[in-house]
Amino acid sequence: MSSGARSATPIGDLLHLRAARVVPGGIYGHTDASMLWSGAPKFVKRAQGCRFWDADGREYIDLMCSWGPILHGHGHPVVEEAVARQASQVDCGNAPTAAFVELAELFVDTVEHADWAMFAKNGTDVVTLATGLARARTGKQIILTPEGSHHGRLPPRYTSERTSASDRLHRTVFRFNDLTSVEERLIAHSGNVAGVLVPAFLHNAGEDQELPHPEFVRGLRRLCDIYDAVLIVDDVRAGFRLTNGCSWEQFGVEPDLSAWSKAIANGYPISALLGTDAMREVARTVFIAGSFWMSGVPMAAAIATINVLNADDGLGRMRDRGEQLVQGLREQADRYGLGVRVTGPVTMPYLRFIDDADLAVTERWAAEVANGGVFLHPRHNWFISTAHTVADIDHILEASDRAFSVIAGRM
Amino acid sequence: MSSGARSATPIGDLLHLRAARVVPGGIYGHTDASMLWSGAPKFVKRAQGCRFWDADGREYIDLMCSWGPILHGHGHPVVEEAVARQASQVDCGNAPTAAFVELAELFVDTVEHADWAMFAKNGTDVVTLATGLARARTGKQIILTPEGSHHGRLPPRYTSERTSASDRLHRTVFRFNDLTSVEERLIAHSGNVAGVLVPAFLHNAGEDQELPHPEFVRGLRRLCDIYDAVLIVDDVRAGFRLTNGCSWEQFGVEPDLSAWSKAIANGYPISALLGTDAMREVARTVFIAGSFWMSGVPMAAAIATINVLNADDGLGRMRDRGEQLVQGLREQADRYGLGVRVTGPVTMPYLRFIDDADLAVTERWAAEVANGGVFLHPRHNWFISTAHTVADIDHILEASDRAFSVIAGRM
Repeated sequence: MSSGARSATPIGDLLHLRAARVVPGGIYGHTDASMLWSGAPKFVKRAQGCRFWDADGREYIDLMCSWGPILHGHGHPVVEEAVARQASQVDCGNAPTAAFVELAELFVDTVEHADWAMFAKNGTDVVTLATGLARARTGKQIILTPEGSHHGRLPPRYTSERTSASDRLHRTVFRFNDLTSVEERLIAHSGNVAGVLVPAFLHNAGEDQELPHPEFVRGLRRLCDIYDAVLIVDDVRAGFRLTNGCSWEQFGVEPDLSAWSKAIANGYPISALLGTDAMREVARTVFIAGSFWMSGVPMAAAIATINVLNADDGLGRMRDRGEQLVQGLREQADRYGLGVRVTGPVTMPYLRFIDDADLAVTERWAAEVANGGVFLHPRHNWFISTAHTVADIDHILEASDRAFSVIAGRM
Repeated sequence: MSSGARSATPIGDLLHLRAARVVPGGIYGHTDASMLWSGAPKFVKRAQGCRFWDADGREYIDLMCSWGPILHGHGHPVVEEAVARQASQVDCGNAPTAAFVELAELFVDTVEHADWAMFAKNGTDVVTLATGLARARTGKQIILTPEGSHHGRLPPRYTSERTSASDRLHRTVFRFNDLTSVEERLIAHSGNVAGVLVPAFLHNAGEDQELPHPEFVRGLRRLCDIYDAVLIVDDVRAGFRLTNGCSWEQFGVEPDLSAWSKAIANGYPISALLGTDAMREVARTVFIAGSFWMSGVPMAAAIATINVLNADDGLGRMRDRGEQLVQGLREQADRYGLGVRVTGPVTMPYLRFIDDADLAVTERWAAEVANGGVFLHPRHNWFISTAHTVADIDHILEASDRAFSVIAGRM
């Protein structure tokens, strides 16, 4: 007979076993927590505000915000009320709803460089559309992107030897914050660079994040003008967490196109491409469509999300909470004599331990933070929402302090 | 002074004028009704069951089903109850929900060839994933598709001279229902054909639809086996309107991969790629993800949609209503001495007038049908839903009869 102890397998692990039978790899993409520490939340059962509960009912304060989309916390009443109102009329219809027009007008009013908007579902949709428009407008082919920069997942990335040659055609890389490397590429591919696709800031997975230097941003605009290349800001991840407009407005720079998704509708599925009048005519010639792109509910959600952000000084509050978190983390690490780097905007911070090439220490720390009821990721930046209160950040800092103490004790 | 008559511009036209200022072309993609007859519904205000109301409150019986997604009518109570239940817990979370596992299991149970499922948002996402997996599995490059066949809109289609050469790389066409043309391509590109991507039936815009011959379907499977090419059925448009499984099950043929979207969640945004065990390992190696791909609500909606279809003999009822419609239309046209062709599956029929190359007569007829309170498209197949009743089809046939009589009177 076995002992009286119950050997209950966690529900999350049982779900993962079931998933592995009917989904290649069980879970795929960035939401796969099965490679994280044992006990990491593989499935989500419920979420409210800045908290979620995993399949086993374990509660976490959430620093991932569903990898960006949740800007005002789950179930924000103003957003949900707009959603319910639109859903009671029509979501996916034969044609757009009035919300389509209203959202485009709101984006044009809100984002300085935007004279027009188009909507899709994935960030990848609008990044792909943007690079296509750049090629169509200029009649040129090459798109420059920073080394290691992420701009969507289609075409999918295979193990390297299997990558289709055509998947990588017409991309050439430069070094972020290094204008000389950009100009070198422009000269090397003389007359054939259609555009420069650049993230609001560099947020490569598992690396220190890098904010753009103002002279880099302004220089990039100038180089694009000189070489007749289209400047595309990929604001899919950062949009509405740095400013109330395009992330590069703070530098006084207006891109030709900006790509948005994630946070713009507080978790409802939509992406947007915004452009200037100079890009309007070529955008008009494109035939592009998706089955659910005109659905009214995500558009109503986006209108409410943007209005809540603006009415409520959401950005100021996110920045204050981010400052509180980042300063607290740095003080704690110093106190324990642990070398860490906290990088990126305070509203999208990332912490890793120095001399931790494989991030093993960073992951052990994240696992200890999770033991304290806070979920953050050891290989990807985190996200602050307007739903995080001072008390929530205090709670997070208690968990992080305990986690630092465990790491310090082990080292 | 003007006369007492009100010159009220329709609300839909006012919305379109506003849209034209902030969206290139006003409305884009297939939902753009501004190129149809004057008064065609450009914006949708409300929808319920198989009816919708345009921005000006004009009621239509809907034969477009939002271009496919609406399988059980808008606001189906079982689907909406599942949606409300999931939404009250979590939609877009940090990780998948139990609905992710349950939907994958349901697809594997429902679709004969499927040993696994993956989910995304757009039909294009899963078609692109499918062609990528075919290339990765075979180490070959070329994808064969039928002439004129539609398999998604990304990369976007530009005016021809502006199309990027790379957008068209590695696609080669054959003639649908012509096995010889397939084998010719396989031989011409000896050893480099990764896959054959083929729609459930040929539904090119503005053309007569073409059902596959059983010997073509079976021959295609055989050729793919001989030449080690991956057989991909694009069931994005037809899925669950021809059978309760993959559309080619009726021929006893199992593809290696099938791509799904549109009808699978009754309007909620989701797409699916289904595959066999032979494709599982390569699918496991792909890193692919989208911001909203793991959202629980569309998955809960899909589970309910599939269960409703199966519990309720939805397919049988759609086929009966389709037969009623198609037979009625043919009888009416005969009676008026008008030459028309009604093609495709009865659940996804399309009517056009013969000797009507630019479809001008077909469009005039559709405009007259719309005057009778029924919306159908003159250049795209229609869709029957399980919400269409015998009385609804009777109503549609009254409108079509009146429209035929107008056309007959004019000719």
